[in-house]
This record gives sequence, C-alpha cells and structure tokens, in this order.
Amino acid sequence: MSANARSESREAYYAQIADENMAPLWESLHSLVPKSPQPQAVPALWKYAKLRALIMESGRVISAEEAVRRVLVLENPGLPGKSSLTPNLYGGLQLILPGEIAPSHRHTQSALRFVVEGKGAWTAVDGERTTMHPGDFIITPSWTWHDHGNPAVEDGGEPVVWLDGLDIPLLRQLDAGFAENYPEATQPVTRVEGDSFARFGHNMVPVRHTSTNPTSPIFSYPYDRSREALDILHRNGELDEWDGVKLRYVNPATGGWPMPTMATFMQFLPKGFKGRAYRSTDSTVYSVVEGSGTVRIGDRAFEFDPRDVFVVPSWQAVQLEADSDAVLFSYSDRPVLAALNLLREARH
Amino acid sequence: MSANARSESREAYYAQIADENMAPLWESLHSLVPKSPQPQAVPALWKYAKLRALIMESGRVISAEEAVRRVLVLENPGLPGKSSLTPNLYGGLQLILPGEIAPSHRHTQSALRFVVEGKGAWTAVDGERTTMHPGDFIITPSWTWHDHGNPAVEDGGEPVVWLDGLDIPLLRQLDAGFAENYPEATQPVTRVEGDSFARFGHNMVPVRHTSTNPTSPIFSYPYDRSREALDILHRNGELDEWDGVKLRYVNPATGGWPMPTMATFMQFLPKGFKGRAYRSTDSTVYSVVEGSGTVRIGDRAFEFDPRDVFVVPSWQAVQLEADSDAVLFSYSDRPVLAALNLLREARH
Amino acid sequence: MSANARSESREAYYAQIADENMAPLWESLHSLVPKSPQPQAVPALWKYAKLRALIMESGRVISAEEAVRRVLVLENPGLPGKSSLTPNLYGGLQLILPGEIAPSHRHTQSALRFVVEGKGAWTAVDGERTTMHPGDFIITPSWTWHDHGNPAVEDGGEPVVWLDGLDIPLLRQLDAGFAENYPEATQPVTRVEGDSFARFGHNMVPVRHTSTNPTSPIFSYPYDRSREALDILHRNGELDEWDGVKLRYVNPATGGWPMPTMATFMQFLPKGFKGRAYRSTDSTVYSVVEGSGTVRIGDRAFEFDPRDVFVVPSWQAVQLEADSDAVLFSYSDRPVLAALNLLREARH
Amino acid sequence: MSANARSESREAYYAQIADENMAPLWESLHSLVPKSPQPQAVPALWKYAKLRALIMESGRVISAEEAVRRVLVLENPGLPGKSSLTPNLYGGLQLILPGEIAPSHRHTQSALRFVVEGKGAWTAVDGERTTMHPGDFIITPSWTWHDHGNPAVEDGGEPVVWLDGLDIPLLRQLDAGFAENYPEATQPVTRVEGDSFARFGHNMVPVRHTSTNPTSPIFSYPYDRSREALDILHRNGELDEWDGVKLRYVNPATGGWPMPTMATFMQFLPKGFKGRAYRSTDSTVYSVVEGSGTVRIGDRAFEFDPRDVFVVPSWQAVQLEADSDAVLFSYSDRPVLAALNLLREARH
Repeated sequence: MSANARSESREAYYAQIADENMAPLWESLHSLVPKSPQPQAVPALWKYAKLRALIMESGRVISAEEAVRRVLVLENPGLPGKSSLTPNLYGGLQLILPGEIAPSHRHTQSALRFVVEGKGAWTAVDGERTTMHPGDFIITPSWTWHDHGNPAVEDGGEPVVWLDGLDIPLLRQLDAGFAENYPEATQPVTRVEGDSFARFGHNMVPVRHTSTNPTSPIFSYPYDRSREALDILHRNGELDEWDGVKLRYVNPATGGWPMPTMATFMQFLPKGFKGRAYRSTDSTVYSVVEGSGTVRIGDRAFEFDPRDVFVVPSWQAVQLEADSDAVLFSYSDRPVLAALNLLREARH
Repeated sequence: MSANARSESREAYYAQIADENMAPLWESLHSLVPKSPQPQAVPALWKYAKLRALIMESGRVISAEEAVRRVLVLENPGLPGKSSLTPNLYGGLQLILPGEIAPSHRHTQSALRFVVEGKGAWTAVDGERTTMHPGDFIITPSWTWHDHGNPAVEDGGEPVVWLDGLDIPLLRQLDAGFAENYPEATQPVTRVEGDSFARFGHNMVPVRHTSTNPTSPIFSYPYDRSREALDILHRNGELDEWDGVKLRYVNPATGGWPMPTMATFMQFLPKGFKGRAYRSTDSTVYSVVEGSGTVRIGDRAFEFDPRDVFVVPSWQAVQLEADSDAVLFSYSDRPVLAALNLLREARH
Repeated sequence: MSANARSESREAYYAQIADENMAPLWESLHSLVPKSPQPQAVPALWKYAKLRALIMESGRVISAEEAVRRVLVLENPGLPGKSSLTPNLYGGLQLILPGEIAPSHRHTQSALRFVVEGKGAWTAVDGERTTMHPGDFIITPSWTWHDHGNPAVEDGGEPVVWLDGLDIPLLRQLDAGFAENYPEATQPVTRVEGDSFARFGHNMVPVRHTSTNPTSPIFSYPYDRSREALDILHRNGELDEWDGVKLRYVNPATGGWPMPTMATFMQFLPKGFKGRAYRSTDSTVYSVVEGSGTVRIGDRAFEFDPRDVFVVPSWQAVQLEADSDAVLFSYSDRPVLAALNLLREARH
Repeated sequence: MSANARSESREAYYAQIADENMAPLWESLHSLVPKSPQPQAVPALWKYAKLRALIMESGRVISAEEAVRRVLVLENPGLPGKSSLTPNLYGGLQLILPGEIAPSHRHTQSALRFVVEGKGAWTAVDGERTTMHPGDFIITPSWTWHDHGNPAVEDGGEPVVWLDGLDIPLLRQLDAGFAENYPEATQPVTRVEGDSFARFGHNMVPVRHTSTNPTSPIFSYPYDRSREALDILHRNGELDEWDGVKLRYVNPATGGWPMPTMATFMQFLPKGFKGRAYRSTDSTVYSVVEGSGTVRIGDRAFEFDPRDVFVVPSWQAVQLEADSDAVLFSYSDRPVLAALNLLREARH
C-alpha cells in the first residue's frame, strides 16, 4: 500500500472509531506523554504600583456585600479565561474597605490570605477573629465558615488589600467542590482572639487534641514572628546559594503543610544576593513583602518591588537577585506533587 | 446611577483590568465555587461485543512497533479531544498480536493493565516478566522501564487485549510528565518470573526491605487469587447492600494503594443483586470480568456484559444490578482525593 | 581532708539522703549508663529431643483445663525466676492433647503460637478457628478472646506442641497488663475458617476497612505459603551473606509488624551455608523448623536440630551455619526498639 | 492419687524440668497475666523545702567535675536500689555551682532538664548553648553530645538546680544503652544561642529540612512562652474537669512527642480547682512550678508546694486540688505505651 493510501485508510478507520468515542493513541502519544513538562502557564509579574489605582477603583465599582468577595483575579496570560495563575492555583487581590463585611460562607476549596496593604481588618474562622497586618499569613481552611470585615473609619478602619491564594482550579479539575452560605452575614464570635494560637502556636498542643484533619489549627501566622526567625537565621550566617534564608510554614500539630493542597514559604534575600537557578515540578506564586530585585524565570526577567506578585510555572528555572534586603512570601501546589510522589527538583 | 449605566461602567472597568490580566471574581464566583461538583465528564459505556472487530482491525492499521503502544483511547463524550475518561484518568484498549513487541520506555505516569481477552502475552517491569491472563491486574509503576510482548503463533501466541488505565490527564494538569525511551526494544530479563511476588506477595517481605516508594513492589495480582478471595467471602455470607463483596488491591509493603494516583478494586455481585445507590468524589472506570447486569449512573442506565467498560463521573449516584453472578474490576482516582482530604462519599 | 575521712563523710551523707529516698548518682553512673549493652540474659539452647519426654509427661501431670494453659516456660539461665527468655520476651512449649480445650480468655499481652509438632489442633480468635500444622505461625492479638482445642482421638486428634511467644515480661515492666476470662470454655464460632485470610491475605483488603489497631487482621500464616516463598527466592539465587534468605511476616493492612511488640521472621539456609556475624539491640528467640547446623552466639556455640529453641540476647554476635538445608523461625522485640528509635545493628 | 501424692509428684516433676531451665506456667499464670496492673512503684512526694539543704550540701561532698553529673537520684520507695521513680523513668535533682562544668558526653538515653531553682547556667547540645531559667523545659536528645556549665560568681553565676528526667530504667530493660565521653570537657560552640529555636520554634521549619529522627529539633522550651499559652487559655475559659488547662509539649517538626520515650506536659490549676480522678497506664513524675495544693494518688494524699516532686504509678487514680493558682510540669512514659498500643485511660 502506498503511504497515501495507508494514510487515507487510517483516516477512514479513525472516523469509524471516533463514532464509538475512541481515538488512536499513536497519533497523540508524544503530546500525552511528553519528555518533560510542557506548561501552558507562562511566567508573569503584576506590578502593584501600576495596579493599585485599579484595585482601589474596584471599591467604587461594587460593594463587598454585593460582590461577596471583591477580588481582582490574576489570570495567567497562558491560561486565558481560566481564573488561574497556575493549573492548580488561583490568585487574586481582595479589597475590603472600612465598614465593609465579606459575608460568611464555606467551601471545600482551601484558601490563604496574605496581607499586602493596610491593617486592622479581620478574618473570622470557626468563631475566632484574627486582626490582619501586612505580612501576616492567614488561612481559611477547607469547609470552615469564614468571613472578613473591616472596622468603620471612625474606629480606625482603613482600606486593606490582601492576596487570596486558593486551590480553585485544582478542585475544578478534581470535581470536588462543595459550597454553602452561612445564614447570617457574619458568624458568631465564640472564642477570644489568639485562642487557637495559644492552643497550638507555642510548640505545645492541648493534651487531648486528636484530629485527622490535615489542616493547621493555627489560622494566623503573624509577620513579626516569621520576620524575627528569618532575621536570627540571617544573623547566624545561614545562607543557601539558591534560596537565601527560606522557611516553610508548618501545621504545628503535624509538622506538615498548613493546608493539604498548598505549601507556603517566606524567605529573606540579603542585599546583593544573586541566587543560583532552581526548578521544580510545583508551580509557585510569589508576593514581595520587602525590598527590590530581579527574578529570572525561564528566559524572562522581571524587576520586582514591594507588593508585586509573580508566578513561576512548573519546571521553569527560577533565579532570584536582590538589590536591597528583600523578603518574599510564596505559595505553591507542592503538597499535591509530594503526596502523589511527583515532586522533582533540580538545583543548577 | 441606573442599572444600565452601572453595567456599562462595569464593562469599561472590566476591559481596563483585562489589559492587566485581571478579571472580576464576582462575575464568576458561583461557577468557580459551585454548590456541588459539576463534572463535564458524562456516564458512558463501551460495548465490547460491538468494539471487538474494530480493536482487531487496529492490528491491520498499524504495527505495535510503529505505534509504540497500539491502543484505542476511550474518550469520554463530555471531554472531547482530551483523551480522558475522567478529568484525571485515561483508559484505552490495547491489542498485542502474536510475535509483537511494544517497546520499552518509562514515564512518570503510572499505568495499570487489566487483561480483557487472550493469554500468554507478557509485561516486563524492572527486569522481570509476568505472563498475562484474563482478569489479572498488572501495574507498570511510575518511572520504571516496561515493555510488553507476545509469543509467536507457533509458540502458542494469541491476540491479547487489555484495558490500559493511566493518570495521563492528571499529570498533564500537574505539569509533571517526564518520559524516556529505552535504548533497546526490550529490557534485559534479570529476574525469574514470580520473583517479586515471592518477595512481597505472601504476607511477608524481605527482612531488609526499606523503601519510600509508595508504589507496590508486586506488579502482578493474578485473577485466580482475587477470585478465590471473593468466592470465600461470598460463601461466608459477606454482602454489602451497596457493594456486594468488594475488595481493594493493596501495596503489601504499606497496606496502601497499589499506586499513589489510582485505586483498584474487584467486586462480586451475586445473581439477583440489586445494589443501593452510592456516590463519591472519585471518578471510576469499570471493566466487566464476568456476568451481566445493569448499572444506573445518575439518570442513565446501561446493560453490561463481560469485557464492557463503563465510567462513573464524580458525585454521580451509581447503582449495580446483576442478572447473573458478576465480577467487576474498577479503578479510580480515589488516592488523589484521599491524599488531599477531598474524598466525600454518600450512601443512599 | 584525707581520702578516708572524705569517704567516711560521704558515707554519712549517703545515709542521710537515703532517709529521703535519694541516692548519689555518681556512685552508679557507669552501671546506669553503660558504654554498651550489658545483658543479663545469656545465650542458651533447648534440645527438643531431650525435652520431648518431659513435655509429654506434662500431659500426665495436669490437664489442660486445670492448667488453663499447659506450658513449660523456657527460662533464660541468666534471668532465673523471671519466666523470661529475654528481658521483654517469654517463650514456652505448650502441649494440647486430643480432646482437650484450653479455655477462652483475653489479655493485653500479645501472643504468637509457632507449631512445633502434631497437627489438627485449632486456635480460635474473634469467632474464627484456624487449624494448626507444623510451621504455621499463628497470632492471638492483644485483648482478643482466644481459646485452643484438639479433636478427640477418634476424630483424628493427636498431641500437638507449639512454641508460645509472648511479651509478658515487657508488659510487666510497663505495668500494662489486663486480663479477663470468657464466661464459657470456648467462644462461639461465628466465622468460617479462612474468613480473615480471604479478607486480608490475598494482597487485597475489604474496601471499607479502616482500623487504628496495629495488629494484623490475619491470624494464621500457613507454613506452606511461607516455605514456598523461601523456595522461590532461593531458586532465584537470593542469598544474603548474613541471613541466607530471610523474610519478615507483615501485617498486610499496614506493611508493619504482625503485632506491635514482636517481630517474626522465617529464613532458609542452604546446606553448607556459613553465615557472617551480625548483632542487634533486639533479642531474638529461634525455633528450628527443618535441618541441622551450628549457631555461634557471642563466645558460645550450639548444635541445632529440628524443633530446638535457642535465644540470642541483645548485642551478642550471632552466626548461623547449616549442615543441611535448614529453615528457622524467629521472633524478637524489634518493633519495641524500632518504635523508640533504639534499634542498632552491626554486620561484621 | 491423693492430693498430697499429686502435689509431691508435681514437685518432683518441677525439679526435673527446672534442671532443663523450664518452669510450669500454671503455677505462675495469675501473677504473670494479672487482671490489672500491679505496680511495685508506689506514690511518693519529695518535699523540696526539706531537701534543699541536702542538695546544696552535695556541692560540698563532691565537685561537678568529679561527679560528672552531681545528681541526687530520687528513688521510688517501692523500687529500692533501682535508681528509678517508675519502672521506665529516672528522676534526679542536679546541682551545678557557679564556675562549674558538667563534662560533655552522649548516650542513647534521652534526657530532659526541668529548671527548678536558679538561673544563668547553660546546657549545650550539638554546638549550641541555651541559658536556663526556672520553668524552662530543656532536652538533651539521645546520642547527642551535651554538657552543662555555670558562669563564675563574678559573672553572675548562682547555684542552679534542675530536675533530670531520663529513660535510664527503660533502656536497661531494653539492653539498649550506649555511651561515650567527649574528648574535651565542653564541646565547641558552633551556633548562636537561639539558632534551633529560630529554625523550628516559630511554626516554620527550614525549607529543605528532612529528618527521620523523632526527637525535637528545638531543645529549649522557655517557661515564659508556655506560661503565656496557659494564661491565655485560662482567661478564655478553658477548664477541663480533670486536668485544668493542660498542654503537652510537641516536636514542632512532627507534632509528636519531644522525645520518643518521654512525654512532657504543663498544666495550670486555678485557685480552688478540685479535679476529678483519672488514671492511665503511663507513670508520671510531676514537678511543681507555682502554687500549692493537694494531690491524691490511689489512697494516699500529699500536700504540694513549689519545687516539690511527686510520682504517680501506672493505673493509680490521681486527683489534683489547688489552694492557689498552680502550675505543674510533668513527664511520663506515655510515648512508649502509645507506640505499643498499650495506653489505657479512665476518667472517673
């Protein structure tokens, strides 16, 4: 048979099997089983200085109550229309104005809130409110009631912006999303602020605590304590050639990730740091807390300044440089990769 | 402002933020965070009797060597063009003819092979070959060299068809796929058939065995043993109102899943069994080993016969009825849901 | 002060503090915190050929019913009066005659039964009876009702002897022993023989099985299957210079030890095997199943023959030699040492 | 046969089997397998006010250097000559005077130091020194080099007394003790004070930390932080009827016990608290930090005041009453019982 004839006969066969909802693997094997990851997500950076006016403008476009959550979703240019920064992770900048409430609900999606600007707003989880300050890392765990609020201007309220990090795209992929609204705008406060931190935050836990819930029972990790740890380690001379000084947040009841689907990190880069290149199969979203510098991701380079957000897709080499002492917060889907034995890393 | 004016002003704002790769969460919140899973995958059944001729035809369309893997991919009608049965799982029917070789390679995707028809072909993993019989459940673990072959007709070879189950769509979602070809068509045989089963299959393990690999060190679970276990339990009166008699395959070195991304099960339904409805956030693919009956999935009903394949999407109620003693093999993404604390079940 | 005067003054001080239930650490530090383990247990071997008549004689001394358990306790000569083979482990030879019952009770002590001679007796655990054959390894887990029996002579009963291995000394040390008698001599039989093995013995487990109990749900590990695994591995050329071919029994639901306090092993030594010396902080009791040879333990050497029992204390070098193909069963307190991060091994 | 004759014949048999190092189980079964724990250890309390002079006197009896560790061992009156407070646990009061060094060594025994009186002495572990204050809980993990010292009087040194808690009796039982002396009196200081706490104490851990060592990487848990947690919880209304407010110390890298063999706790009892009775199979040693009250243990009652030490044997009911706000530190062998599935508790 000539190549043409064979090709035609194959096409006829393909049409026939297509009627039975079947397709020939051999035509797509190489793309289905690639030599190495081929992410559609691309490296990108959002410049806070440029976006700030638009974020504040959202406060005039819609109220927090009407929006439920007034968030500007950051969309990876390689994943248009998917409300995704990476295949598994969502990121957005949420604004809450003095006197506003973001009403109470719960969902199986896990969420983190990393405070970018402003202070004094609160997040309530399971009957306890925590006050938010820039650099605080706060979680609203899967299937827990949560709401946010901000005191009125006369009580010291000011606009507060935080980065929302959720596993929305992952749960869509897994068809595992459930959600409910709380009957009231805010859940009742039943515990004093600091209660869960007192129970679990001091390297001690309640004597009869047992739980199979993998999510951290601490829901606020204040910036001053994280910053202090980085400071001490930096002063002690700790400095990794790739990471600078980098810590990961843990669930103090297990030593594991704060949430089962998202890892979170904070790292310090001293002025003049020029990190070596590193890559990994987790995809990472960074939020700049302090300082300026340059990040190289694959063949792209971005200048970063405080409050900027940038994203590193899977298996893209990343390299960090600091023009001044810098602090970076980041979150990734590492727990997913690790749980499925699919985490690979390379340090170059 | 009138509703119209507000709407127009919002659209203008949306266009402005779109330029910055941002989108308003409040317009998509309900679809991003649904009340319950909204799978795009649909219930479906592939009738083996109808497909068999097409499968055999594939042997004339392309050689195993040219195809690398001569597989007809089963595509969920709700996920067209995605080579997926469910969001995370791939399934396909592979044919290997007497005298053929499917050449050796390895990839991070985990694979299972469930033998549907024919016997005497072999699968090689890590230097050991196992002979395949109908009903055998065989794995080719993540990142292990594997190849398949079939003796020549004169050596007793006959056409063999098996169901391939892989986590290809999941790894694409995770951007975690790596692959390599082996330099030769077949890897060298370095261990006698039965070696890994002797090491791990008898409720004993080598005294110095330690491994952090979550995948089972047994790579063949023969049908005669699984069938015997179901028989004994059925004779002992074990009968669950939802499941009949249902066992899950385990990694004998850990008691966990055979592979980190896919669970596998075998169940017996006695003649006349009318199971109650059940649903779960894992998506499941079934292969009928013996017997006939009806499966109701959501609002659909399908008659099933031996070698048929059917798929149950996330959170769709499934109900099994048997017209004769029936045996069903199934695989699902349950380990993924379980690892991420997202497995929900309901028995109605 | 002269040395004498100082010594006298110290003695006076020691007497004074003794009145307050205090003692000077510095006088005993070296023995309390030794450079390496100083076991009081000594190597020893019990020659079955010599003991058999005495064991059978016990059948005339007392009935199984009066004795509750008619066992000759093997006492380590270095631990007189302690009913111990090692600090943590008890061993004894139990005789049950045709027509006898050893009445039902339960206790927190874990027990293993390794059949030495005779067949057809049964052990009942949790409503299921298992028939005992030489070489079978059977467990009666902590806090489960268990009883033993032997058919009458006319029903084929014959005297049966097994080695009992328990953690009695460990539980005495831990003050954690609880016990209860069952109201009847035998518990009701509620499950068919083989039920638990069908559920858990075939590298599958019931789909809804969950348990926090670390003890194996299989309570009989038949000799023919263990022997077959050793055979296959030996034929495949597996031979460790220290161990020969050695497997450990596992709990198939976890991959862990069959019981939380005792590890069990079976190993094959081919004729002419001269093993290298090994030591470990677990203490081990061996029962010879087949074959003859020599075991060197520390500076002692013992000839062994089928059914002999010998004991290796902590940190004593052990070396095995086989004059004919030999099979050894053994049990040790390794899970205790491992759980407490105190297991050390050295291969010389 | 008459009862006498039978008894004589049995004795003759017993003598015969004794020659073979065997004993009749049926004569000792009831004591070997008791209905419930029969601890030899007894409840006891050491009155610090009464002992203080004797402790200080030890400083004149022997130097820290000569003693290696100048400790008055607290001996349970029920376990005379065994240097034990409970079957598994050792306790002693260690004095270190200004200018003294307790030389560096390591051993497989795990140790805790709970500071009772005085401040400013240091404990060094793995190249880092920590300064000791009353109420601090400090560990010197298994097989880590450790030494202690106290500044000279002119540098502010004062006599410091701490309670040593070790698993010495357990390791003797397990024949698992190894020890070594460091070639110098003190190990070199290679890390700044606070380094390990900065790495692991702030609910964060180094990003590349992996360890299979179950012992906490934090070696000092300062009293001010533990006390603060208890305070907050008490103010929030937390009050268990048995325990008051009770926290257990954790290894922040795992959420598990600080050491694999010993659990540690700190609890607050408000003035007027009358706790209900509780018992457990772990044996516990208490050290009073603040306040006075009464403890009932079995049928004994003891008044307690600051710095007193008391011991609760296995399965003895304990009941705590406070005459003033009280804080108690305690340690027990709970991890051993828990690891072996032998922990039982009852709340009455």
